[in-house]
Amino acid sequence: MDLQDPIFTAHEGGKLRIESTVPLDSREDLSIAYTPGVARVCEAIAADESLARTHTWRSNLVAVVTDGTAVLGLGDIGPAASLPVMEGKAALFRQFAGVDSVPICLDTKDPDEIVAAVKAIAPSFGGINLEDIAAPRCFEIEERLKAALDIPVFHDDQHGTAVVVLAALTNAMRLQGRELADLTATVIGAGAAGVAITKILLEAGIGDVIVCDSRGIVHSGRENLNPVKEELAKTSNRFGRTGGPAEALAGADVLIGVSGGTVAEADLAGMADRAIVFALANPNPEVEPAVAAEYAAIVATGRSDHPNQINNVLAFPGIFRGALDAGAKAITEDMKLAAARAIADCVGDDLAPDLIVPSPLDPRVAPAVAAAVQAAA
Amino acid sequence: MDLQDPIFTAHEGGKLRIESTVPLDSREDLSIAYTPGVARVCEAIAADESLARTHTWRSNLVAVVTDGTAVLGLGDIGPAASLPVMEGKAALFRQFAGVDSVPICLDTKDPDEIVAAVKAIAPSFGGINLEDIAAPRCFEIEERLKAALDIPVFHDDQHGTAVVVLAALTNAMRLQGRELADLTATVIGAGAAGVAITKILLEAGIGDVIVCDSRGIVHSGRENLNPVKEELAKTSNRFGRTGGPAEALAGADVLIGVSGGTVAEADLAGMADRAIVFALANPNPEVEPAVAAEYAAIVATGRSDHPNQINNVLAFPGIFRGALDAGAKAITEDMKLAAARAIADCVGDDLAPDLIVPSPLDPRVAPAVAAAVQAAA
Repeated sequence: MDLQDPIFTAHEGGKLRIESTVPLDSREDLSIAYTPGVARVCEAIAADESLARTHTWRSNLVAVVTDGTAVLGLGDIGPAASLPVMEGKAALFRQFAGVDSVPICLDTKDPDEIVAAVKAIAPSFGGINLEDIAAPRCFEIEERLKAALDIPVFHDDQHGTAVVVLAALTNAMRLQGRELADLTATVIGAGAAGVAITKILLEAGIGDVIVCDSRGIVHSGRENLNPVKEELAKTSNRFGRTGGPAEALAGADVLIGVSGGTVAEADLAGMADRAIVFALANPNPEVEPAVAAEYAAIVATGRSDHPNQINNVLAFPGIFRGALDAGAKAITEDMKLAAARAIADCVGDDLAPDLIVPSPLDPRVAPAVAAAVQAAA
Repeated sequence: MDLQDPIFTAHEGGKLRIESTVPLDSREDLSIAYTPGVARVCEAIAADESLARTHTWRSNLVAVVTDGTAVLGLGDIGPAASLPVMEGKAALFRQFAGVDSVPICLDTKDPDEIVAAVKAIAPSFGGINLEDIAAPRCFEIEERLKAALDIPVFHDDQHGTAVVVLAALTNAMRLQGRELADLTATVIGAGAAGVAITKILLEAGIGDVIVCDSRGIVHSGRENLNPVKEELAKTSNRFGRTGGPAEALAGADVLIGVSGGTVAEADLAGMADRAIVFALANPNPEVEPAVAAEYAAIVATGRSDHPNQINNVLAFPGIFRGALDAGAKAITEDMKLAAARAIADCVGDDLAPDLIVPSPLDPRVAPAVAAAVQAAA
């Protein structure tokens, strides 16, 4: 690697900085912000913990927690190597929603130890953003933390992605004048994103979802399903389809690729008319957008150099901003659906086949999402 | 409480803020700081973890960790109520030494769980500042973390206080033209500070230390000593003195009060000529400075409204600055002794009975301490 490369020089010294928001220039400043004055604030919180919300920074503070096992498309690279991504995430929280956040990269992959560590540090934070934790452990860890903590716990790889996908699909439906209830979507990949996308689409009222993992279509007759896929087999695939990607895509209206693999052109060809293809693997989409466009009316990817970038940054800053402002104890299904509607609505009259989601840089998105989430909380 | 009181308004919203240090205004910015560019930095760190030191913020980042059990003089007020103090500490780290730090207030008092949680989050940080953890658990927790981690672990209530006390005593000796080896010091209080002060004074070559806790003088004939006090009984009190504060102070040259209690005037009266009294309980010194001055040649307290304020802020910012800059894996005895010398030397020609330590606001101190610590590392 070339440390003089602009990518590396941009990351030198890291990407975050802690600032004090109080003056510390005189003895009086010290006696207010630190001893002896601070003792009165401590005593007040000890007597009434709700004051921790107004008189500490935690009500604006999110822990970005990872174990480094599913970082971007890089896989299990460990906690230290995941830190640049978590710093980037924290920088995005600040930039788009004014949320303070701190990377917490954990030196353990054991779900019990991860849950214990996050529970232990929770009093310092107003919310927990789980990030880049491999499936299926991520499902158990999130569920256990949600049950244990009274602050929002949100696994962004699941729900952030799912919210933006739903927003994009909502706008694609608007363009085509169709209803979600009439569609069948095929989700290729049953990791964190695939599972959460399936759930939110069903929640939003889609006709059916067919989930296809590396072993083929998830169906109730398949053996050795983990508990999460067992649940998927019950809630998706209402007609009990079996087979591989070809069978999964035959006649499907929507393809959502979150596998990191590839989808064969011949399988695409089997989709229904006016097909919608979201090929979200990064950096290499499951199918090249130009190829997808031969078979699909609307194409989206995860890439910034193509139109219709499905990017979590459209969701997580505003979702946490809204949840924190509402003092919400959790991020509910209603809050996620509200976020998806708000993202979709930001496109407004600009709606077009190559503009079904706002730009990740659109400054209107996070405030709109925050307001919708707060209202739904 | 009156939330309109200036103390409370000063703490509204907390005292810290996370800033991004990279631009995030264009698609190109995003592609450098976040995906896809960040992946290259992650891969480089995965291949060579030493790059985490240069290309993340952790080499400038300290976790300020507490369980909220011994906060200021307030005792066990819990993690949420301790947060304002930890934020203040983090603000001081930034102000005096440019160190980033994050409060981590733990929802457990169990040493095993505390050690496990700190070990788990350690890859996110360049150092661990333990704070306001009750004795004697604090000793075990610090020792176990020092053994487990290859980054500096420093319990400030012990070592920060000890370093500043040694600095102050060094200057008192200079003023009086005496040698540490000729002195006997009586330490009232055998908590975190008392134990660490005793150790550093012995390390620095003092003649003898008599430690007195709520049950009287610590000596090897006493029953039910915890392991830490058993060790103290071996290393201090060379003539096997027994009794209470009166016996502990009889003929002593130095009184160091870190008990939070009081010292009787009659006991003070039994000290040697040219006595030195550090009454460090906060906010109420073990003896009023005016009373102490009747029996002592030099008096110091922990209070900002009296001369000679023994304040940890003289030590911890510079100590961590130096340790981080040196890439030190631990904070050694030599580094602490060097820090004490540097603090003492900052007083220079201004040395006087009411000026044996620099002002906590003196901007020269932290850089001088950092340089000394880095050289000793």
